Amino acid sequence: MTRPAPKTFTLGEIANQLDARLVGDADLVVRGLATLKDAGSGQVAFLANRAYLKDLPGTAASAVLLHPQHGEACPVSRLELDNPYLGYAALSRLFDPLARRDPAGVHPSASVDPSAVLGKRVEVGPQAVIEAGVTLGDDVVIGPGSVVGADSQIGSGSRLYANVTVYHGVVIGQRAILHSGCVIGADGFGFAHDGSRWQKIAQLGGVVLGDDVEVGSCSSIDRGALGDTLIGDDVKIDSQVQIAHNVQIGDHSALAGCVGIAGSTRVGRHCMLGGGVGLSGHLTICDGVQVTGMSLVTNSIHEPGVYSSGTGAMKNAQWRKNAVRFKQLDELAKRLSRLEKQRLDSPGP
Amino acid sequence: MTRPAPKTFTLGEIANQLDARLVGDADLVVRGLATLKDAGSGQVAFLANRAYLKDLPGTAASAVLLHPQHGEACPVSRLELDNPYLGYAALSRLFDPLARRDPAGVHPSASVDPSAVLGKRVEVGPQAVIEAGVTLGDDVVIGPGSVVGADSQIGSGSRLYANVTVYHGVVIGQRAILHSGCVIGADGFGFAHDGSRWQKIAQLGGVVLGDDVEVGSCSSIDRGALGDTLIGDDVKIDSQVQIAHNVQIGDHSALAGCVGIAGSTRVGRHCMLGGGVGLSGHLTICDGVQVTGMSLVTNSIHEPGVYSSGTGAMKNAQWRKNAVRFKQLDELAKRLSRLEKQRLDSPGP
Amino acid sequence: MTRPAPKTFTLGEIANQLDARLVGDADLVVRGLATLKDAGSGQVAFLANRAYLKDLPGTAASAVLLHPQHGEACPVSRLELDNPYLGYAALSRLFDPLARRDPAGVHPSASVDPSAVLGKRVEVGPQAVIEAGVTLGDDVVIGPGSVVGADSQIGSGSRLYANVTVYHGVVIGQRAILHSGCVIGADGFGFAHDGSRWQKIAQLGGVVLGDDVEVGSCSSIDRGALGDTLIGDDVKIDSQVQIAHNVQIGDHSALAGCVGIAGSTRVGRHCMLGGGVGLSGHLTICDGVQVTGMSLVTNSIHEPGVYSSGTGAMKNAQWRKNAVRFKQLDELAKRLSRLEKQRLDSPGP
Repeated sequence: MTRPAPKTFTLGEIANQLDARLVGDADLVVRGLATLKDAGSGQVAFLANRAYLKDLPGTAASAVLLHPQHGEACPVSRLELDNPYLGYAALSRLFDPLARRDPAGVHPSASVDPSAVLGKRVEVGPQAVIEAGVTLGDDVVIGPGSVVGADSQIGSGSRLYANVTVYHGVVIGQRAILHSGCVIGADGFGFAHDGSRWQKIAQLGGVVLGDDVEVGSCSSIDRGALGDTLIGDDVKIDSQVQIAHNVQIGDHSALAGCVGIAGSTRVGRHCMLGGGVGLSGHLTICDGVQVTGMSLVTNSIHEPGVYSSGTGAMKNAQWRKNAVRFKQLDELAKRLSRLEKQRLDSPGP
Repeated sequence: MTRPAPKTFTLGEIANQLDARLVGDADLVVRGLATLKDAGSGQVAFLANRAYLKDLPGTAASAVLLHPQHGEACPVSRLELDNPYLGYAALSRLFDPLARRDPAGVHPSASVDPSAVLGKRVEVGPQAVIEAGVTLGDDVVIGPGSVVGADSQIGSGSRLYANVTVYHGVVIGQRAILHSGCVIGADGFGFAHDGSRWQKIAQLGGVVLGDDVEVGSCSSIDRGALGDTLIGDDVKIDSQVQIAHNVQIGDHSALAGCVGIAGSTRVGRHCMLGGGVGLSGHLTICDGVQVTGMSLVTNSIHEPGVYSSGTGAMKNAQWRKNAVRFKQLDELAKRLSRLEKQRLDSPGP
Repeated sequence: MTRPAPKTFTLGEIANQLDARLVGDADLVVRGLATLKDAGSGQVAFLANRAYLKDLPGTAASAVLLHPQHGEACPVSRLELDNPYLGYAALSRLFDPLARRDPAGVHPSASVDPSAVLGKRVEVGPQAVIEAGVTLGDDVVIGPGSVVGADSQIGSGSRLYANVTVYHGVVIGQRAILHSGCVIGADGFGFAHDGSRWQKIAQLGGVVLGDDVEVGSCSSIDRGALGDTLIGDDVKIDSQVQIAHNVQIGDHSALAGCVGIAGSTRVGRHCMLGGGVGLSGHLTICDGVQVTGMSLVTNSIHEPGVYSSGTGAMKNAQWRKNAVRFKQLDELAKRLSRLEKQRLDSPGP
């Protein structure tokens, strides 16, 4: 694949696409997007966070996307929108070079089983493998070296980057984005101990991903033991994430990098798990829960809100003393209670 | 590869295979396995955990695998076994569609060095690479896109799923299962600092996996600096695990997802490390140790038992207050001691 | 690729290469490197840590690399150096079989776009993919199944092991080592919430790796949202590491396994992050900071030194009591203050 030449737009076209109010030259041509600080001539910048308001007066951008309240302070052409961050998202997609490539078809070095069913405009990259019984919807892109296992289905408009692995019998919805190195449908971690060694439990379930799911690089979503692992619509999963067998993730939830979720746990809708968060197995996390980075959750959560565990970093010398005291914490609490009791027992002055 | 049609068994055949006592129709044909709640006609369910006893009376399964003590409560045909969970494991393997495929041979798109030695019934998938000097035992399956490096040996009955990487000079025992994206034998993390920059220490050792080892998706087992990284027999490793150079893991130990073990640490036999556990380098963990999820172990453990660290999640507002106090913990303990001392020093009432 | 036969050196040649003082037989031929304890005849051992001094008198090595102060205690030929650990690093590279292979050229099964520019002595392994517009410097080795995306540049002397993925538009310096399963340039995790669902922010930046960077197996370095993710010269990154979009890592820093760094955080030069460390987004970590294993850093660090968080593992029964007290910590501290106040308020004895 070659990156196509950068696309250009007039400010008028952009205002139209983003449904923004343009104050400035509708015929001005721009060819890219940058921060207020880095943008130069021919580029659009955006102001979506007050912290960057200081960069507005000196920007060299040709135009700025911003909230009407900052319009007066803008020294160049501007595109006014109520939610400039959403506007930035839309603009970034306009300038995305991958969004407008012509499909390259099936590369001669790819291995596609004759029983696979390919939709219209499907692209299968070099060295990719499509096994028997696979169904690929319209406009699906399978990157170089990716493998789609037997009988799996991938919905229309989905893209697998290079070296993705989808096991057999996996169902993926429409417009999925799977990044390199991610693995969908490997065996869950299931063994029965016979008193001396482990006996494997064959993992007979599958994985079902809803529509508009994104999975980051090197993340794992394991297949179910019995029944399926279920990822809802519009779920966004970052890199290095582990989702164990029979987990369920509700629609619109987002999991940051290095999250690990143990078997059969159910995460609700609109949840957000920070980087490195761990959830024990067989829990229920209700809708609207946020968990901050590197927290460990060992009990179900039934009330929406923000949850945390752990302790923040401090200088090692200070930490050593406090960490030792942590090991004495129960004893310290008992000593405190004893003192309080003595106080109460002692006669008044 | 195509998934073969589901296999069917009579209850009599299953009772025979599992050495279970059948109470019911020996000629009844079943074609799958499900939970008590989900099973329908033609499926076998199992009861291995009292928590699901409530689902027994209403099950629509054709038969249930259970302990004799629950036999009377079973509304349908039953298979009685002393350890129904082990029975479930055995039954799951009977119904595993991957267990009875005919080997597909070496795919024409695979790249197999002429000096490699392949046993009987070996399967090498599309786009796989077998380098010079490799030995593959009988019944080995190498998945699509997997790479086996020069001079490595893989024991009979082992299966590498798609996109697995085995470096050069790695030794893998019999009946191994390596899941997609796992990497066996990459360089350990070894550098000497020369005062201004890092000098690489070539990693000249290898990796040896015993028999019956399973490695999950996207896990890493690094090669030794000098001498080998050693994984014992029947060791089960989940997804997203990092095992550094010269680590040793004793037989029958199990490591859950996202575990990280630093260099040269030795883990005993029959140990169980929970998800996200971290072990520092150069430790010795004795046999029979369990470490709960996301704990950090920085000292050797010489006594079997269960170990933990960290703090469980709580509401963020509550957590913030407590986490601040953690930073004052040593000072709080000293203030408490001072109060106690004053108490002792004060004259009696 | 075949591993070449082990190379042999005389002690005189080694002394010359390492600039060491030889006391012993310059013509003695050695063929490998081992620890003091494991080395046999024909092997060189080294003493770089006093903990192993006990193994020196009984070593069966043919020669030992050590500091002059231990020369007298050495029972065999010796190579004296002020920094024996650096000497060991240099010696390990002399004996590295991968260091002296003849380049194998472009394998016929590789897929190389005709527009790619390949330097001298470039090796491209079986099933590898080089997309359009790629530039590979002299002596670059691309392992089997690796994919280099459109318009990416890889500097001379760099090596990608098998199944590495480099996305489009990535720039990698000279002498890089990228281990299997690592992914450079996948999309950063960027979405704008429109009130009901996530809108993708196209990740339009790239990734730039300096010279002499090493990246471990299954690690992820994401591309920038706008502008590039920047990894400095001589940065060493272990396995299972996640580096988010627009992170910057200063020269000579080292990141151990399972580290996770959230978006836009800047890590200084000569920093060392222990295994499993997590850094929140948008932080600044100054030069010369060390963070111990599994610590969470949620605030910028402006002073060099060692930082830590968390609590070490203890027996689970003890831990349970202390972890419960952690949840009461703020309340305990308040009770302590109350007692102190009462003490002050009470009339003197």
